[in-house]
Amino acid sequence: MHIYDLDTPALVIDLDVLERNIANMAAHCQDLGIALRVHTKTHKIPEIARMQLAAGSQGIVCQKVGEAEVMARAGIRDILIPYNILGPQKLRRLTALARMARNGGHSAITVAADSEETVRGLSAQAAADGATIRVLVEVDTGGGRCGVQTPEAARDLGRLVADLPGLELAGMMTFPSNPRAQPFFDCARDLWARDGLPCEVLSGGGTGLEAVSKELGFTEHRSGSYAYEGMTRIKTSADLTPERCATRVIVTVVSVPTPDRIIIDGGQKTFESYPPKPYGLVVEHPAARIQAMSVEHGHVDVSGCDHRFRVGEKLSVIPLHQGKVTNMHDEVAAARNGEVVCVWDVAGRGKVR
Amino acid sequence: MHIYDLDTPALVIDLDVLERNIANMAAHCQDLGIALRVHTKTHKIPEIARMQLAAGSQGIVCQKVGEAEVMARAGIRDILIPYNILGPQKLRRLTALARMARNGGHSAITVAADSEETVRGLSAQAAADGATIRVLVEVDTGGGRCGVQTPEAARDLGRLVADLPGLELAGMMTFPSNPRAQPFFDCARDLWARDGLPCEVLSGGGTGLEAVSKELGFTEHRSGSYAYEGMTRIKTSADLTPERCATRVIVTVVSVPTPDRIIIDGGQKTFESYPPKPYGLVVEHPAARIQAMSVEHGHVDVSGCDHRFRVGEKLSVIPLHQGKVTNMHDEVAAARNGEVVCVWDVAGRGKVR
Repeated sequence: MHIYDLDTPALVIDLDVLERNIANMAAHCQDLGIALRVHTKTHKIPEIARMQLAAGSQGIVCQKVGEAEVMARAGIRDILIPYNILGPQKLRRLTALARMARNGGHSAITVAADSEETVRGLSAQAAADGATIRVLVEVDTGGGRCGVQTPEAARDLGRLVADLPGLELAGMMTFPSNPRAQPFFDCARDLWARDGLPCEVLSGGGTGLEAVSKELGFTEHRSGSYAYEGMTRIKTSADLTPERCATRVIVTVVSVPTPDRIIIDGGQKTFESYPPKPYGLVVEHPAARIQAMSVEHGHVDVSGCDHRFRVGEKLSVIPLHQGKVTNMHDEVAAARNGEVVCVWDVAGRGKVR
Repeated sequence: MHIYDLDTPALVIDLDVLERNIANMAAHCQDLGIALRVHTKTHKIPEIARMQLAAGSQGIVCQKVGEAEVMARAGIRDILIPYNILGPQKLRRLTALARMARNGGHSAITVAADSEETVRGLSAQAAADGATIRVLVEVDTGGGRCGVQTPEAARDLGRLVADLPGLELAGMMTFPSNPRAQPFFDCARDLWARDGLPCEVLSGGGTGLEAVSKELGFTEHRSGSYAYEGMTRIKTSADLTPERCATRVIVTVVSVPTPDRIIIDGGQKTFESYPPKPYGLVVEHPAARIQAMSVEHGHVDVSGCDHRFRVGEKLSVIPLHQGKVTNMHDEVAAARNGEVVCVWDVAGRGKVR
């Protein structure tokens, strides 16, 4: 079936572009000499995670326990959840996951933590359930999100992790990788070395910041959005073109109320209501401007187009933020040269917990 | 189980507030003397639609065929889909729905149309499948979305609907109800009467615009968001208070990196990245300001709070736009006095087609 014959709105992945993006990032990290750990938030699909692992990624990242469960059930080991896991329900699921996903004799589940409360909760549950959880101390190097604020606080929390039962201290992580973090990490590493704390992993993140992580002396880098690429990244990266975007949303023109306005059947529930306009690029008619979205309608200004649009016509749109669009769709059609090859469940979609 | 004992993030509905909102709107429309047709986009839950029908709503609105299928399977009849339905897959599903949801001898499925292409597609499929689809001609009375632009165009399309097999002309609809549309409808009704076209239904829409529909001489009004109410409507409606919002998102404080910043475990994937800040109201601490959201983190400025927040603490947040938050969650906990009564599947969630 051709992608234009799909019922709309339909999220489509171009496999050639996806494979090229995966191969390019793998080569880029190999050239830099830094290990790649792919963030699966962009696609939430085990089949794509396996393609990334086959291309050389050393492991994956999931942002939620529920996403990690999906990936582990698909046979994937070595999962990092860079998040403070709290509360009895999630902690029980985490230790069950750690026991299931054991890699040989080793724990394959790593989490991040930035507080004593998080670390003590992890330890108590792991010890009670006979599991081992690997822990990275999260440090804030300018991102202003989670993370301890000083090298001394990182060392103190690392020491606590090393001392508590059920935990294995793996190292440190931050997001995003930031060149100004060099003094922080130099100091933190010194403090850890002085205490004899293990620091096998130093993990940075952010697609496009792989070289920064290498400069900082990190051991691995977490990249995610590179797999699909979206218009947001294109706007900020000179070397990115629409041809490098793997996702398209196929939509139908449902109304041509006036000659300069068409309405498409994708709105906020299809594209996510990401603020910057236009909300995506109409591939067939780049002069068409998606200038507003209600929940189920996309409002497109076509005053700049010579084309005479007709009701029922199909269009393909490159969305702005690929990861958020993914989370709106239960399934994705994977296509090559415009022909649908298979349909993947977005198995990790909607795992809010 | 108390709502604070739910794993987070968790979407919760307060049943007392929901029931009060449903009763109030039913009474409001009864006082006005206009029939209410509830839009289910806000909740996407058949159980709530049934509560609204029991309170006197004469039917429901779904925005997608997939949502209507969910409601029809739950036994609900008299469904309006105010959308141009196009394409063979959706048309086949629509006629199957019309045959299944027949109400006695009558078609219980009504759609909107604003073009000859839509109307001819509906007719061809309905005639082929032995179904009858009721059609409202959609008119644009200033909304700038779909809809024919002139009373004459409405009359011409009405005439076509009346002439084609498989269709039943029901009347006209618009969104939102607009006082300035009076001349348009006066003229359109005259033209229809002159042609002897049936106009059993004149349907307006928009929570808060019930009286406008009555003034315009409409027969029914479509309201949806009143069931939950959200902060967006509170900002624009003087008589709305947080106590009238039925939804809460229970979140956990996962990090207190600095004394003036806390991070909660609800971000764009939980709340939807609706642009206006703050992204919601923290009920327990109204001075806390949710000032940024990444995909899985909510960034809260607590510099204005005396309370000393701790990691692991639960908070409840009233989201901005209840309908979009609903679409991010597979299930909703229904609670009374803080105790969970039952958990509802958001059965109509994610039905993009």
